[in-house]
Amino acid sequence: MKRRNFIAAAGAATLLGACGQKQECGDSAGASAQQETIKWNMVTTWPPGFQGLGTGAEHLASLIGELSNGRLKVKVFGAGELVPALQVFDEVSSGSVQMGHGAAYYWKGKLPAASFFSSVPFGLNAQEMNGWLLKGGGLELWQELYAPFNLVPMPAGNTDVQMAGWFNKEINSIDDLKGLKMRIPGLGGEVLKRAGGNPELIAGGEIFSALELGRIDAAEFVGPYNDLAFGFYKAAKYYYYPGWQEPGTTLEAIVNKQALESLPQDLQEIVKTACLIANLDMLAEYTEKNNQALNILVEKHGVQVKRLPQEVLDHLESISEKLVEEQGQANELSKRIYASYKDFKQKANAWKVVSQSL
Amino acid sequence: MKRRNFIAAAGAATLLGACGQKQECGDSAGASAQQETIKWNMVTTWPPGFQGLGTGAEHLASLIGELSNGRLKVKVFGAGELVPALQVFDEVSSGSVQMGHGAAYYWKGKLPAASFFSSVPFGLNAQEMNGWLLKGGGLELWQELYAPFNLVPMPAGNTDVQMAGWFNKEINSIDDLKGLKMRIPGLGGEVLKRAGGNPELIAGGEIFSALELGRIDAAEFVGPYNDLAFGFYKAAKYYYYPGWQEPGTTLEAIVNKQALESLPQDLQEIVKTACLIANLDMLAEYTEKNNQALNILVEKHGVQVKRLPQEVLDHLESISEKLVEEQGQANELSKRIYASYKDFKQKANAWKVVSQSL
Repeated sequence: MKRRNFIAAAGAATLLGACGQKQECGDSAGASAQQETIKWNMVTTWPPGFQGLGTGAEHLASLIGELSNGRLKVKVFGAGELVPALQVFDEVSSGSVQMGHGAAYYWKGKLPAASFFSSVPFGLNAQEMNGWLLKGGGLELWQELYAPFNLVPMPAGNTDVQMAGWFNKEINSIDDLKGLKMRIPGLGGEVLKRAGGNPELIAGGEIFSALELGRIDAAEFVGPYNDLAFGFYKAAKYYYYPGWQEPGTTLEAIVNKQALESLPQDLQEIVKTACLIANLDMLAEYTEKNNQALNILVEKHGVQVKRLPQEVLDHLESISEKLVEEQGQANELSKRIYASYKDFKQKANAWKVVSQSL
Repeated sequence: MKRRNFIAAAGAATLLGACGQKQECGDSAGASAQQETIKWNMVTTWPPGFQGLGTGAEHLASLIGELSNGRLKVKVFGAGELVPALQVFDEVSSGSVQMGHGAAYYWKGKLPAASFFSSVPFGLNAQEMNGWLLKGGGLELWQELYAPFNLVPMPAGNTDVQMAGWFNKEINSIDDLKGLKMRIPGLGGEVLKRAGGNPELIAGGEIFSALELGRIDAAEFVGPYNDLAFGFYKAAKYYYYPGWQEPGTTLEAIVNKQALESLPQDLQEIVKTACLIANLDMLAEYTEKNNQALNILVEKHGVQVKRLPQEVLDHLESISEKLVEEQGQANELSKRIYASYKDFKQKANAWKVVSQSL
């Protein structure tokens, strides 16, 4: 109960607190409603202020404030400040918090098909994710998947492709994956396991020392932008590409359905729009910062950037294809999600060969 | 004078007409201001309803209406409906129209450096353009370039990479470019000319018959999405890639500075935000539609998709580099724009090798 009280206190005036009944805030034509300030909380899966991801959530909250001329104010909480990272989904689902920011694959234990809405190994890249979600039916499927949980999902960020990771052991063949102790969570970790490796779950803040002390041989985290800030180049010899495990990770905003529907129509549009802007903005940020950071890693820190051998990539891809298919088998909806994703990917791959070959 | 009268009539109630003085509309906290409807016109460089581009401008106008809860209504005009396509810049600059939608390279006669804000041969791709414009200082330089013309520019669409074009003549060597009669406007056309070809200016609607009648050997237009709709596959043998001449064309919205500043602060934010959403949305649309259309062109219509030989691409690139540099020499600002673009491109290329090699 204590945590619940804290939530209420931190919210100052939550939606219901500020408006009493829905009608008072819901009448967007009324002058008094226009001047009413609605206060929301947003819980996130990111450490407070985390570069790119946490700051992206804060940017989203600011945007909602600006676009609504202050009528809707969203206060952002880092992981653990209101609720632990992995309770974001449940808390927003229950309505104790109005909004959350995280990544869909965190909920794959509950919903295996959720991974398709963040990133899967050898899946869609950032631009393709936007194509599938916004124009290829992906968002509608995502909404259907989250609807029983009272949640409305929206794409609200993208990290661009993530790197294959930092290695203290060269990878020259498929055999080198065997016994490889690597920090790699999620589906990527499962693929490594099936390839004979030992995936480990290590929190971001502990990766550096695990690499430095030799407790692990390798670690993937995000990309040059975040990896430079964490100083991994001081603890590992090689920086491998391409990032097969997450080719373009979409971040999500989730909004409690009743909270969203309690807003006047234009504020509902503003929330959705702000998420899309956050989506665009974060990818632009990662694109620019990854460019800069890779340049610094190579030019200033002399990092050796290496490409995984094609036979290793082919092997990982064939394992991934099976694993990804398994994510889309849980039920009828999962199968439709997988079929839609697979069809989009097949056509996107053909266009990618043609469009990204300059 | 007749056209001016028509503009005023079509606007029904323009900004000044609806609000009289700035204060009446500018006080966003006031209830009467909230309910006031401001009406704007948007002139575009696209044929009315043109797939992807014209519809993108219409989507932008709808978004502004929705986000503002109807407080700002924007009426869209196709090329020639209010003003000819190539007068969009001047009309919005003069203030006779509040807003325009087009592409910056249309104004390169007046401002050679403008091309950097749409697309230049062998330049940035769509994702990189967003990185440079939104996070790499590009937008600020664009604003500086347009400021003397009383215009505020914003990115408001992207076609993704455009194809090298439709050919009835195979391109196997640099020599095959000599004498090539090709519909290719802008800087791409100038590059072809320097390579010994004969670029021709032909309006979109006349390309098909020019190809079919053999008056030209080749034509570039946009990409699979638009090209399929125009039926070029019926008039040409080969569809060549990669699209070196426009690797990711950003469309622009331009807003008259006084018109923008006359809006309440939240409406100003809404206009800017809607442009960014249009930017994201159009790229998602082109990504999805290009995927589908390429598939149809190949599977249904048996189109032969061919890659330009590397020696031809290398030759075109070396010519392009010089030409692009020339665009950035007009004055001190042009030089800064070119330097910023070139620096971004250099780093983006290094990241692209690493990030897009799966």
